[in-house]
Amino acid sequence: MMNWKLEEEGYDVDKIATNGNKFLVGNGYLGIRGTLQEYGREEFPAINLAGIYDRVGDAWREPLNAPNGLYTYIELNGTEYRLPQISPTNHHVALDYRHGIFHRETTWETPVGKVTVKAERFASLKDKHLIAMKYIVSSEGEGVLRLVTGIDGDVWDINGPHYDYILPQVEQGILKEIGVTHESGDQVCVCEAAVEDFPMEIKISDEGRKLLRVITIQAKAGISYTIYKYISVYTSKDRADFKELALELVQKAQTEGYATVKRLHTEEWEKKWKVSEVVIEGDDAALEGLNYSIYHLHCIAPRHTSYLSIAARGLSGQTYKGAVFWDTEMFMLDFFLHTEPTVAKTLLKYRVDTLEGARKKARSYGFDGAFYAWESQEGGFDACSDYNVTDVFTGRPMRTYFKDKQIHISSAVVYGIMRYVDYTGDCVILSEGGAKVILECAAFYYDLLVKKVHADHYELHDVIGPDEYHERVNNNAYTNRMAKYTFDSAIRVIGLIDKLDQATAEKLKDQYDLSRLYSRYSDAAAKLYIPQPDEKGIIEQFDGYRNLEDVSLQELRGRLLHEKEYWGGAYGIATHTKIIKQADVVTMLNLFSSDYRKEILLNNWEYYEKRTEHGSSLSACMYAMLACKCGMPERAYSLFLKSATEDIRGEGKQWAGLVYIGGTHPAASGGAYMTAVEGFAGIHHEKGVLTADPKLPAHWTHFTCKVIYRGDLYHVNITQDKTEITKLGRA
Amino acid sequence: MMNWKLEEEGYDVDKIATNGNKFLVGNGYLGIRGTLQEYGREEFPAINLAGIYDRVGDAWREPLNAPNGLYTYIELNGTEYRLPQISPTNHHVALDYRHGIFHRETTWETPVGKVTVKAERFASLKDKHLIAMKYIVSSEGEGVLRLVTGIDGDVWDINGPHYDYILPQVEQGILKEIGVTHESGDQVCVCEAAVEDFPMEIKISDEGRKLLRVITIQAKAGISYTIYKYISVYTSKDRADFKELALELVQKAQTEGYATVKRLHTEEWEKKWKVSEVVIEGDDAALEGLNYSIYHLHCIAPRHTSYLSIAARGLSGQTYKGAVFWDTEMFMLDFFLHTEPTVAKTLLKYRVDTLEGARKKARSYGFDGAFYAWESQEGGFDACSDYNVTDVFTGRPMRTYFKDKQIHISSAVVYGIMRYVDYTGDCVILSEGGAKVILECAAFYYDLLVKKVHADHYELHDVIGPDEYHERVNNNAYTNRMAKYTFDSAIRVIGLIDKLDQATAEKLKDQYDLSRLYSRYSDAAAKLYIPQPDEKGIIEQFDGYRNLEDVSLQELRGRLLHEKEYWGGAYGIATHTKIIKQADVVTMLNLFSSDYRKEILLNNWEYYEKRTEHGSSLSACMYAMLACKCGMPERAYSLFLKSATEDIRGEGKQWAGLVYIGGTHPAASGGAYMTAVEGFAGIHHEKGVLTADPKLPAHWTHFTCKVIYRGDLYHVNITQDKTEITKLGRA
Repeated sequence: MMNWKLEEEGYDVDKIATNGNKFLVGNGYLGIRGTLQEYGREEFPAINLAGIYDRVGDAWREPLNAPNGLYTYIELNGTEYRLPQISPTNHHVALDYRHGIFHRETTWETPVGKVTVKAERFASLKDKHLIAMKYIVSSEGEGVLRLVTGIDGDVWDINGPHYDYILPQVEQGILKEIGVTHESGDQVCVCEAAVEDFPMEIKISDEGRKLLRVITIQAKAGISYTIYKYISVYTSKDRADFKELALELVQKAQTEGYATVKRLHTEEWEKKWKVSEVVIEGDDAALEGLNYSIYHLHCIAPRHTSYLSIAARGLSGQTYKGAVFWDTEMFMLDFFLHTEPTVAKTLLKYRVDTLEGARKKARSYGFDGAFYAWESQEGGFDACSDYNVTDVFTGRPMRTYFKDKQIHISSAVVYGIMRYVDYTGDCVILSEGGAKVILECAAFYYDLLVKKVHADHYELHDVIGPDEYHERVNNNAYTNRMAKYTFDSAIRVIGLIDKLDQATAEKLKDQYDLSRLYSRYSDAAAKLYIPQPDEKGIIEQFDGYRNLEDVSLQELRGRLLHEKEYWGGAYGIATHTKIIKQADVVTMLNLFSSDYRKEILLNNWEYYEKRTEHGSSLSACMYAMLACKCGMPERAYSLFLKSATEDIRGEGKQWAGLVYIGGTHPAASGGAYMTAVEGFAGIHHEKGVLTADPKLPAHWTHFTCKVIYRGDLYHVNITQDKTEITKLGRA
Repeated sequence: MMNWKLEEEGYDVDKIATNGNKFLVGNGYLGIRGTLQEYGREEFPAINLAGIYDRVGDAWREPLNAPNGLYTYIELNGTEYRLPQISPTNHHVALDYRHGIFHRETTWETPVGKVTVKAERFASLKDKHLIAMKYIVSSEGEGVLRLVTGIDGDVWDINGPHYDYILPQVEQGILKEIGVTHESGDQVCVCEAAVEDFPMEIKISDEGRKLLRVITIQAKAGISYTIYKYISVYTSKDRADFKELALELVQKAQTEGYATVKRLHTEEWEKKWKVSEVVIEGDDAALEGLNYSIYHLHCIAPRHTSYLSIAARGLSGQTYKGAVFWDTEMFMLDFFLHTEPTVAKTLLKYRVDTLEGARKKARSYGFDGAFYAWESQEGGFDACSDYNVTDVFTGRPMRTYFKDKQIHISSAVVYGIMRYVDYTGDCVILSEGGAKVILECAAFYYDLLVKKVHADHYELHDVIGPDEYHERVNNNAYTNRMAKYTFDSAIRVIGLIDKLDQATAEKLKDQYDLSRLYSRYSDAAAKLYIPQPDEKGIIEQFDGYRNLEDVSLQELRGRLLHEKEYWGGAYGIATHTKIIKQADVVTMLNLFSSDYRKEILLNNWEYYEKRTEHGSSLSACMYAMLACKCGMPERAYSLFLKSATEDIRGEGKQWAGLVYIGGTHPAASGGAYMTAVEGFAGIHHEKGVLTADPKLPAHWTHFTCKVIYRGDLYHVNITQDKTEITKLGRA
């Protein structure tokens, strides 16, 4: 039985950054890093906000961190007791990931005896703008105890400061900080109410962007002093009356009290688990890793709006610019499709909403159609820089081609929409803009097709596939196959046109010459060159891959001159070898496995797996899923566990060149879910029927989960001997 | 009046390498670096051989240096007097570049007074296998003078040693060393005969690859001791009986005597100057620089065979692998066309002879037709490495694309052949293989053409133009235009088919479907996209060039972190800027100037000149010639002088990354000639008539030269007021 707790004893300064990710709580509107209350910007605390960005100077645009309303520390008899400055005698942190509650307990030795801080906090899943915290101090000795708490507007930023100024206000005993952003003057309002249950003296202090209550207590020996804090976060992008709402929210929470606020929050979490919990018997590591992964996906699911996607590092901070990558459609979407289709739709509606940005990006390169952003921010703005990596040897920015050559991103959007349509059986998203997105993506690929003048087939040149270590290649198998998928999807959509909402259908017919497009894309789908298995059954990743140096991963690693040097680019150690960063051909085979004989799947798995660094958290799950399809659950298992425990272990790559890329890995979480549910359990649908073809690892004695399919909730019950799928009714 | 002498007083060890180039003598079969007799391998002496190569291990294949039969030093009373070990009191070197004779005179202080060595030597232009030297020693004091002379087989190599072993022999008083090469067992035979006019004692010593005569003289005060040496060089590639020939040659020279050998040699040089001398009055620097440039072209002209080309560094050593580049056709050919068409034909016949190598190279990349080697060695083997530059920051080889993407090389071959045909009026070269070369080059470009599926025009993607700092670009204006030129030439050749030798015509008709090719290449020539002037009259060098950073050369230079770092490649300081290495669009405009309005020529000259590093010695002359065509001889002038004095100054780039690239610059020499004769004098031909449209710099009061045109020799006589072209009769 699992206890739904992630715990850590003892204090280690080297874990400050990774624990920030590991112990994250969140509710889709905001994420709170698993940092301690007393932390200042040096320790990377953050209340990271979804979908609101700012840019200062030439640096990258990145998401905002709200002024930190959790900020609290203590002073006893004139000495501040806080981490990491004063070493504790005991320190314990825990995450209740059943309910998204973070706990800490720390004890310091003082001249008058021990002093202990015990706290818990959560980002309410009931009201996404609300954070609540309970903070208890007790001292063995008497003395003057100062509890300093309030809002710290001096937030941690990677490329900040983002607030040109912070307005401090105190209103009806409630502290308020309003940060005004640099680029477009957006406002972030944080209100904080504190409720104490002991006699004290309060002074408000406002200095250096910190608006603080200094609470002075004549502490008695052995007595606990408890303070409850309610913090609301709203931005000017949420509503015009965001300041009023923020104030009202903390007042309401004060009135309801901590127990009620917490109960409403935990009830909401229980609702989520009721559908999404996966039970594995016989393997606690898998059970815990998987449900912890699911927890992370819940923490970042956008439920407060109808169009928003998830950043590649979730809500764990500003790394990767808070931008949305193909990770969402290809790695996270399936979890939501299976457990909460409304969230899946919200994610895809973000792409519909950002179509204009994608068209603008295509236009900027002289292309037709929609070229979705490699790193998508508000409005589909591509936050990716042309110089995304820093050369460790010269300190110079290196020209990278992620933004301009990773054209497979548009096909991921198409894939997501069509997968949603097929899985849910619901075409409404096509009427709501999805059809247009698909037509525009097809137009994009069509414009990119080249042919040799004397040849019959079409090619795609100068691209980067999923394996980013090999830049600017021709005929990347994955990219070409996904472009064909896009043409096929456009053909399907044109065929479905009269099943769409009538106004939409009319508009599309007006806007496009659909019969011309139909024949154009049919021609393209038929003639686009898709690399085929060679005589050994191997599909070449791109033209010329087979001529590259065949070196082992170990030998290659031995060639590193600098631990942080970039493996890819023009001269990286991997560039001119067969070593790849992540699943590429294998990703294609996993998506289109039914097009290939099992022997081909297996050959390519074997060939590429030993040549894959798995330098991206997106890699392991693709190999794991394909291994399941090849009937090798045991070989899938370690890769599954790698995905499921990516954030527990916290060992993922922290650096790309000199750029910090730490944070949570929701794509790995989503990949772990996919591997368990679609890989090991083999759950899939065929002709409108949900079915399962399980390949459980031998030590998994029992596997159960629930999934929603076409509006119905099903219970899936698998042992080594039998498989039961039971419809439980409408979801 | 010029004295045809290049002189230098005093000794400077830092000039050892550049003086080796500056004071070079040669006869097309071999080049002797301007080094001193006593130099060992550390001082880069070389008797560099044309057209014979060897490769050791994984290093580059490079041309051979023959065992050094000039090797000589002296010892007086037990002390060796030699440079650079013992500083001289006087040192003087001189090159008589009217006759290709190198002089040196050096005096050292010794305990018994001064000792002086005075020597001269030449590579016979009469017999290309023969070298002769006169060496005189005199001492102010008496003593035991040892003169050590013979053959030094321990030659300087960049990537050697190339002789697996050296066979020493002494036969009839003649020293002989036969070096056997590593890769294919080729043999280089050097014979040395010495004639002395004084009483002495001789001992033969053979150690460490040196076969030496130790001549001991009881030197008397103030007496000069003279020794004459005759050295022959033959290789097993010349003739089967090369060893006998080598022996006979030195015996014959011995019999004839030094005066006769020298007279025959100088007479041969006089014959060359009779046609090729250019006289400029009013500008001695130009006069001397230009004739010195012409001297270098004579030194390396292959007259001993009917198919051989010239290496990019002439016969000055092994840099650039002794390989033939487009330099020959685009920069050197015109000099020979104008003064010695048989040599021009020999150069082009090398390309005919290496067609199979070019076809093989094309095939290796999966292309049709002939892809000529970027760095061509024997048989058209491309000596260019995929890793041609070393990264100064990591010491790692950098992947470069000169070999695989610089496709314009094939068009240069076509250009050379058609230019020969047009200028000489002689189509025989087409029958002798030239027609086939052109058809194969057209097939190559045709195979490379791509089109966007929905577009009408054809493009060339992923190439490197003359400006090597910008790799892997699309639609380089120069490359596209030259490919069109190739298609046009193929069309012409097909049209001329019945004017060729009948057997050749039949064979070509058998081998090719000429009418199909005619329509195919006509279509390609019509539809190939040629970048056109924009609204400001500027032709974009390649797709996207106009979006690059516009930085000044000076500012860019300030960004260097290492003096030898490579400016190009993926991350070079120039790569993402508009700064280019050398004439690119300007080269195209110069070749096709009549297709453009003068204003366009001028606009592009102005635009690109300030953005050109002139990091290649091929650059200045293209700008100079186009400046003449724009009516700006004064602006052409400094660029002309830069080309003409490239090797006199010896300031050219010595390094590309960590690779030594020093040597002579025959393309600059050829460029200086072209600028003078075709630019300033404006000599050209129109409809079979030789004509001139001079634009002399204001201070040139008189310009005369002779040129051969269609078999006739003409005298061109130009002053600021009048232009006379007089036919002198058959050449």
